[in-house]
Amino acid sequence: MKATAEIQAIPIGDGVSVRREVEHVVELLRRAGLIVEPHASGTDVEGELGTILTTIEQIHQSLHAHGTVRLVTLVKLETRTDKGPTLAAKRL
Amino acid sequence: MKATAEIQAIPIGDGVSVRREVEHVVELLRRAGLIVEPHASGTDVEGELGTILTTIEQIHQSLHAHGTVRLVTLVKLETRTDKGPTLAAKRL
Amino acid sequence: MKATAEIQAIPIGDGVSVRREVEHVVELLRRAGLIVEPHASGTDVEGELGTILTTIEQIHQSLHAHGTVRLVTLVKLETRTDKGPTLAAKRL
Amino acid sequence: MKATAEIQAIPIGDGVSVRREVEHVVELLRRAGLIVEPHASGTDVEGELGTILTTIEQIHQSLHAHGTVRLVTLVKLETRTDKGPTLAAKRL
Repeated sequence: MKATAEIQAIPIGDGVSVRREVEHVVELLRRAGLIVEPHASGTDVEGELGTILTTIEQIHQSLHAHGTVRLVTLVKLETRTDKGPTLAAKRL
Repeated sequence: MKATAEIQAIPIGDGVSVRREVEHVVELLRRAGLIVEPHASGTDVEGELGTILTTIEQIHQSLHAHGTVRLVTLVKLETRTDKGPTLAAKRL
Repeated sequence: MKATAEIQAIPIGDGVSVRREVEHVVELLRRAGLIVEPHASGTDVEGELGTILTTIEQIHQSLHAHGTVRLVTLVKLETRTDKGPTLAAKRL
Repeated sequence: MKATAEIQAIPIGDGVSVRREVEHVVELLRRAGLIVEPHASGTDVEGELGTILTTIEQIHQSLHAHGTVRLVTLVKLETRTDKGPTLAAKRL
């Protein structure tokens, strides 16, 4: 099933700046073969729902492996059956 | 990896009342063996991160199979390495 | 206009434990005269939309005054015109 | 207090397509004098926290006045005291 999503990882306790962690998240999403559009409040992605969810699990595993102690990830997932959900169609 | 999460499914285009869909989501989360605590703005769950993510995929598949045309799911995921994340510890 | 909402404040850079900050947020919501129901992933509230929004501004001002350097607040707001939105009606 | 935010309005019961409503929300945010950057999963804004919150109240009032029966608005607010929060600084 195709899906679009927005993903924002918020490391808690890594300090005030989390740019390194955010860049790592975007890199993991790109490596998963998803369409990836970072913006100021998260990253929009498009691809298979299963791939998106598996990559979210990798994000938690990888950030913890790199030292993040506590991680909150905010996810908005969207699927629809009347037409393929795409980032392009959702833009104004 | 253990995780806590909040899940809220928002069917779009099913009409103003979505109680039937919300009850179905809670039932799917319970059947997955997760600890499940519904509240007014979503459902808090506790369990394996992989189980939580797989169940979110089932929610999209099942609601679409029951007629929902467009589905947005809001998810807050949390993991931590200093101690097991539990719903009990997160309550005041 | 009456509204229901969920509010979760996430201080970044205050360290891994943010219990003190969360308790302060719930106290500010209670003092504002809102119906307040804390749960494991945030706090559900019910009251006037204007009061809810004003209190969110107070939360940012007060947590920064108490030393939080960076604060992300997640808010889900809901209003409806067919009947009064209430936390009671939203529970299963 | 300066803030950045992401705002996504989700009308429930208006039908599967909500493009008209989303365009109206972006127009209200622009008229309020905020820096406005729409993307596929919401609209990022930058400006005074009080202005952002007042505009969110206007969004609820205006969409209901135009016929939306039930409206959920998702908001991520961010403020910080170490430097001005800007959309530019949050982009990768």
